[in-house]
Amino acid sequence: MRSVKLTLAYDGTNYSGWQTQPDRVTLQQTLERALRHVVGEDIRVVASGRTDAGVHALGQVVSFQTDSRLEPEILQKALNSELPHDMAVIEAALAPAGFHAIAGARRKRYRYVLDDGAIRDVFQRDYAWHRYCRLDEKSMRRAAQALVGTHDFASFQTAGSERQTTVRTVFEIVVARGQGGAAGLPYRSRGTGGLATRGAAGELDAGDFITVDIEADGFLYNMVRVIVGTLVEVGQGKRDEAWPALVLEARNRQAAGRTAPAQGLFLVRVEY
Amino acid sequence: MRSVKLTLAYDGTNYSGWQTQPDRVTLQQTLERALRHVVGEDIRVVASGRTDAGVHALGQVVSFQTDSRLEPEILQKALNSELPHDMAVIEAALAPAGFHAIAGARRKRYRYVLDDGAIRDVFQRDYAWHRYCRLDEKSMRRAAQALVGTHDFASFQTAGSERQTTVRTVFEIVVARGQGGAAGLPYRSRGTGGLATRGAAGELDAGDFITVDIEADGFLYNMVRVIVGTLVEVGQGKRDEAWPALVLEARNRQAAGRTAPAQGLFLVRVEY
Repeated sequence: MRSVKLTLAYDGTNYSGWQTQPDRVTLQQTLERALRHVVGEDIRVVASGRTDAGVHALGQVVSFQTDSRLEPEILQKALNSELPHDMAVIEAALAPAGFHAIAGARRKRYRYVLDDGAIRDVFQRDYAWHRYCRLDEKSMRRAAQALVGTHDFASFQTAGSERQTTVRTVFEIVVARGQGGAAGLPYRSRGTGGLATRGAAGELDAGDFITVDIEADGFLYNMVRVIVGTLVEVGQGKRDEAWPALVLEARNRQAAGRTAPAQGLFLVRVEY
Repeated sequence: MRSVKLTLAYDGTNYSGWQTQPDRVTLQQTLERALRHVVGEDIRVVASGRTDAGVHALGQVVSFQTDSRLEPEILQKALNSELPHDMAVIEAALAPAGFHAIAGARRKRYRYVLDDGAIRDVFQRDYAWHRYCRLDEKSMRRAAQALVGTHDFASFQTAGSERQTTVRTVFEIVVARGQGGAAGLPYRSRGTGGLATRGAAGELDAGDFITVDIEADGFLYNMVRVIVGTLVEVGQGKRDEAWPALVLEARNRQAAGRTAPAQGLFLVRVEY
């Protein structure tokens, strides 16, 4: 038996999340069906974490065992021709015996994308959370720093998870404003279609997208989405910059902001 | 009666094109239904051109006549709250009496987006044409220059259109390679998720998207898509750089390359 590690990108819009469920189209089932066609075995895969319906991945990691002797590059190509166009294997590699995508994960990075343009970007509707109110990303950035470090994040999870501990270590939180998140899109539905636009005052538009990247040793259920919902209240000026620190201290979900919707969330990468 | 000019952005993926058709969901019908809700009149709109199923717009222009005295900014906000999230009014303005979105158009600009990454970008599947073979964008750029100017573009149209003349003036063709077309995306499914990546040789990756912008005084049916299909054959090395000039001279659709698929095409702007 060989252990294989796959790195996947997917657009979660059309799936009922990662995990196999009866009568639903899920990412796990879709991958396992493609694997069955390619290697001729009934393979059960393990993902680093189960993403919810509508959540996307740039670098989900999956592991499985197989008797197949296919070279990883061949396996990758074959899977990519079997998979629907909203899923792709971006890397395939042999892993050390016993490699396990959940048990071995040391760090994970998630990104949440906010769109605070006056007019929603029609192309980003499934990939960002649109807020009509302009957000103060500098306040959000300062407020977020209270969450960096090893803390009890009980305030920043939603029910449905059973964990032995709610203590996690957040390595960094990066809040950035840009054109299309990191930079311009080829088909921005606002402005001049990718070119920087000038605001009323004539200065260059700094962009209508805010990305919040969070890297941690692990995440509680909905942790990124509750942190972002909380930071957005600071960005809107409804709460002051010291508030997220108070929410953290409260260790109570009721203290935090709302859960940001699924479609803005991307699993960026997992380290082992 | 007032003349109103609307500038629209839309994602054409879920529509059977612009023009109203029985038993199909089209962009025109969707806009006219929203207008009926907002101004309480049965309004027939005119667009600068009818985009096909799957074609997108960054700046489609639409005109109509109305008895409504609503301020344009109010009309815009009301329409944007009525429209589905894949359509947005990015500008609304009163137009001179008799303004007509087709008759008055002097210049139009279209953009076609190609994705030539080794692995398709799952988030761009509805917004780019993925080619497995790396394209030589410099060859494409040089080859395209033969099409700039006033020419008979009979080779670069598909049947279905009846035009008095197939002569058009192309003002410019800009072929550019970039990250995500113009620049990085917040959720690129390849590379490091928005950061520039280094290739095997250590140099900065110039990006896996090519945009072809074409500006002209008007376009024949499928003209951009046939031009791009032709340039892609040059980019793949199947044809040499002089070939598009020969296709132009032939004045025969059989001479040109295939029609590039709809999903890579964006109507960028219309000038009056």
